[in-house]
Amino acid sequence: MPHKSWTAVEAYLNSHKSAFEDDLCQLLRIPSVSTDSDHRGDIRRAAEWMADHFRRLRFETELIETAGNPLVLASSLPVPGAPTALVYGHYDVQPPDPLDEWISPPFEPTVRNGNMYARGATDDKGQLLTHVKSAQAWVEAAGQLPINLKFLIEGEEEVGSEGLAEYLAANASQLACDCVVISDTSQFAPGQPAITYGLRGIAYYQLFLTGPKQDLHSGSFGGAITNPANALTALLAAMIDGDGKIQLPGFYDDVAPLTTREREGFQALSFNDQRLLEMVEVDAATGESGFSLLERRWARPSLDINGLTAGYQGAGAKTVLPAKAAAKFSFRLVPNQSPEQITAALKAFLDERCPPGIRYELQEFHGSPGFLVPLDSPYITAATRAIETGFDRSPVFIREGGSIPIVTQMAEKLSGDILLLGWGQNDDNTHSPNEKFNLDDFHRGIKTSACLWSELAKRET
Amino acid sequence: MPHKSWTAVEAYLNSHKSAFEDDLCQLLRIPSVSTDSDHRGDIRRAAEWMADHFRRLRFETELIETAGNPLVLASSLPVPGAPTALVYGHYDVQPPDPLDEWISPPFEPTVRNGNMYARGATDDKGQLLTHVKSAQAWVEAAGQLPINLKFLIEGEEEVGSEGLAEYLAANASQLACDCVVISDTSQFAPGQPAITYGLRGIAYYQLFLTGPKQDLHSGSFGGAITNPANALTALLAAMIDGDGKIQLPGFYDDVAPLTTREREGFQALSFNDQRLLEMVEVDAATGESGFSLLERRWARPSLDINGLTAGYQGAGAKTVLPAKAAAKFSFRLVPNQSPEQITAALKAFLDERCPPGIRYELQEFHGSPGFLVPLDSPYITAATRAIETGFDRSPVFIREGGSIPIVTQMAEKLSGDILLLGWGQNDDNTHSPNEKFNLDDFHRGIKTSACLWSELAKRET
Repeated sequence: MPHKSWTAVEAYLNSHKSAFEDDLCQLLRIPSVSTDSDHRGDIRRAAEWMADHFRRLRFETELIETAGNPLVLASSLPVPGAPTALVYGHYDVQPPDPLDEWISPPFEPTVRNGNMYARGATDDKGQLLTHVKSAQAWVEAAGQLPINLKFLIEGEEEVGSEGLAEYLAANASQLACDCVVISDTSQFAPGQPAITYGLRGIAYYQLFLTGPKQDLHSGSFGGAITNPANALTALLAAMIDGDGKIQLPGFYDDVAPLTTREREGFQALSFNDQRLLEMVEVDAATGESGFSLLERRWARPSLDINGLTAGYQGAGAKTVLPAKAAAKFSFRLVPNQSPEQITAALKAFLDERCPPGIRYELQEFHGSPGFLVPLDSPYITAATRAIETGFDRSPVFIREGGSIPIVTQMAEKLSGDILLLGWGQNDDNTHSPNEKFNLDDFHRGIKTSACLWSELAKRET
Repeated sequence: MPHKSWTAVEAYLNSHKSAFEDDLCQLLRIPSVSTDSDHRGDIRRAAEWMADHFRRLRFETELIETAGNPLVLASSLPVPGAPTALVYGHYDVQPPDPLDEWISPPFEPTVRNGNMYARGATDDKGQLLTHVKSAQAWVEAAGQLPINLKFLIEGEEEVGSEGLAEYLAANASQLACDCVVISDTSQFAPGQPAITYGLRGIAYYQLFLTGPKQDLHSGSFGGAITNPANALTALLAAMIDGDGKIQLPGFYDDVAPLTTREREGFQALSFNDQRLLEMVEVDAATGESGFSLLERRWARPSLDINGLTAGYQGAGAKTVLPAKAAAKFSFRLVPNQSPEQITAALKAFLDERCPPGIRYELQEFHGSPGFLVPLDSPYITAATRAIETGFDRSPVFIREGGSIPIVTQMAEKLSGDILLLGWGQNDDNTHSPNEKFNLDDFHRGIKTSACLWSELAKRET
C-alpha cells in the first residue's frame, strides 16, 4: 500500500466527520428493537439501510433470511494476495424502557457534551459503523481497500443470535478469514483504549433436590427426615471452600495459568479496586486466594449461585420441612476448561455427596468455553499499531469476566484470530436509559479501523 | 370417695353413650371457624353452648371477653381439701377447605365405621367433650365431683391463642391448680393409648444477607464481589455438620439428656421406622448420629431450613449475582434449652462467620422452650391408672417433636404438672378433609377422664 493512499484516506476522514455523524444519526433513528415484534418493520429497515450502505461501496451484498431477523453479508472487491478480515456487528438494539428516564428521546439522536445520545449509540450501531466508514474512506479516497473485507451483521444479538449461529454452523467455509474484528466492548477507561484478548466461559445449571413426597411439619419430622433445603445448602457450600477454591474433582486441571506477562500487565493497569467496591457499595471483596481482584474477575474460574428457591417464602414463619429445594448456579470458566468436563465433574460430585433420603436432578443450561487470543498473535500486533495511530496511545490488554457466546462460536467455527476492539466507555449506559457514544471515540475508532486495514495488508507485503 | 360412687358413675357412662354422642353432634354442627371473621357469630354460639353446658352442671361459669374470641371459664362446686385439676381445650376449629374432598359435609356430623366425621371431631371438640361428659357423670350420678375441676376453653387455638395468652399472664393465680389436663393429641397407635410427657420447643429466625447495592452481572463480578447467596449457603451449612450436630457455640450445653428409662421406653415401642419412611416416600433417613429415629424426632434438637429466597427464581437461566439472599430456619429445642440463649449463640456465630462484603440482619420469630413432665410425677401415675381403667391397657410414654406454644405458656404460668392425654389417632385427618374421631375412643376417653378425677382425689385421701 503506497503511503499516498493513507494520506488520502486520512484527509477523507478529516473532511467527512460531519457526514459520518449524519449517517450515524440516520441509523440510530431506526428503532430496530429485536425483543419486540412490533418493530419487525424497523428491523428490516435497519438491515436494508446497512445493505444499501455496502452496495454504495460496491460491496457484494446480500440479505440472508433466517428464521428470525435477516443477516447482512457484504464483501469488498477482491484484493488478490491480501489477507481477509471479517467484521462482525449487530444492527438490533435493546428496548429503550424505561422511557421517562431518557433526557432526550431514545430514537432522536442528540449531541450533548461531545456525546451522541441514543439507543444503540454504543451498542452496537456507533461502534459497528466505525468499520463501515473506514471502508468507505478507503474505497472513496484510495479507490479500493488494501485487504479483503467481509461484513457479517446480524439483527438478533440482543435476543440470542440464533439465526447467526445456524448460519455460522452451515457456512463457516464461506466466511473463511484471517481475523475477525468486533467492536462491541469498551475501552479500559476514558482515554485508554484496550484490546480485549480473553473472555470467560460459562457452565450454568439448575439443581433440583426432592425429599419427602410433600412438605412436612418440621416439629414432627425435623432431625429425622432429610431436609432438601438443608441438603441444598450443604451441597452448594461444599462446592467451594473458604479460600474460594472450587471443590469439584479435577476442576482446575485444564485451567490455563496466567502468564507472568499477563499478571504484570494487569498489575500495571493500576485498577482501583476500592472504587469498584464503592460503586457496588460493599466494604470488602472476597474470592480465590492468591489472585488480585482483576485476576479473579477476568482470568480465574468462579462459582456463583444465581437463584435459590425452597419452602416457605411468604411473610412470617411457617414450620415446614420442605419437600423440594432448587438452585440455579453457574461456573465462570477460563481457557482451557470445557463445559462438558465440568458437567461430568459436577455429576460425580453430586453422586458422591447427595445425602440419603434425597434425590437430585440436574438441568444443564448453556455452556460455553472461555476464549483467549495469544498476546503474541500478529493480528494483536497489527491492532496495537492501528490503535496507536487512531488514539495516539498504546492500548492495554484486558480480559472480560463475562461470556459472549457468539464470540466463542465464531472462535470455534471461523479460522481467524478474534480481535475485540472496543471503542465504548464503561459508563455508556448500555442497555440502560441515556445510552451514549463519545463522538471523539467514534472518529478515533474510524481512523483506527482505517489504519488496521493497512496494517493487516502489511502482513502480506 | 366411696366405691359406690364409681359404680354409679360407670353405670351412668354406660347408659348415656347415645346422649353423649348427640351432644357431640350438637357442638360439631356449629361451624366455629376462628380463621374466618364470617364465622364470628358461630364462634360465640360455640362459646355459649359450652358455657350453657357447664351451667347445667352448676359450675360457676363465665364468658371472658378478649380482644378476639371469648374464653369460657367454669369451676365446679368446691370440694374442700381435694386437689384441683384444670382442663384446657378449644372450641374453635380449622376451616373445612377443600370442601369438595369431604365425603359427608364438614358441619353435618356423620358416623361411618364407628367414626364420627366432622370438622373439629378430634381437634378439639370431641376430645374436649370427654372431660365435660365425665364431669357430668360425676355430678349427675354421684352428686358431686371428687375433686375441684376448672375448665378453661378458648376460641383462638387455631389462630395463635393471643387472648388466652394475655389472660394467662394476668390471671395465673386465679387458675392455680395441681395439674392441667389437655386432650388435644393422639394415641401412639390404634388400641395403644399414650401419655405425651414432652414437647420440643422452637426458635425460629429469618436471616437476610445483603451484598452489593443491586444485582450484578455474574460474569463481570463473579469471583470478586461476595455473593450473598453463596454466603447464605455457607453460613447455613456451617451451622450443622455431617453428623447432624449443630455447631452454634454451646448449643448442647443445656440439653437434658435422655434417661436410660426413656431410651428403653422408646426402644420398647418398636416404632416402625421403615413405615414412616414409606409414608413420606423417602428411601432413607438422616439425622444426629448416635440416636434412633424416634429419639431424634422427640427428644433431640434439630435445625431445619424452612425457606430459601435468593436471586432469579423464574424459568431459564439468568446470570445474576444477587444483591440479597434470605433464609427462614428454625431450631427445635429440647428441655432445658432456652430460645434466648440460642439467639445469643446464633448472633455470635454470625458475627464470627459472616464474610467480608456481606451485611446480615437477623429477625427473630417466635421462641418457645421445650416442655417435659417428670415420668415419676404422681399425676402421671394417676393418669396411667385412669387409662388402664378406661382403655383396658397401660399407656406408653411418648414425646412429641412439635411445639404447642400455649402448652409451654401454661407450663410456665401455672403451678401444676401438665398431662397431655390424647384420645385421637394419627390418621384422624386433623386440619384436613374428612376429620374424624373414633366413637369407641370417645367413650374410653370419657371413662378415663371420670376415673382420673377419682384417681387424683385419692392423692389427698
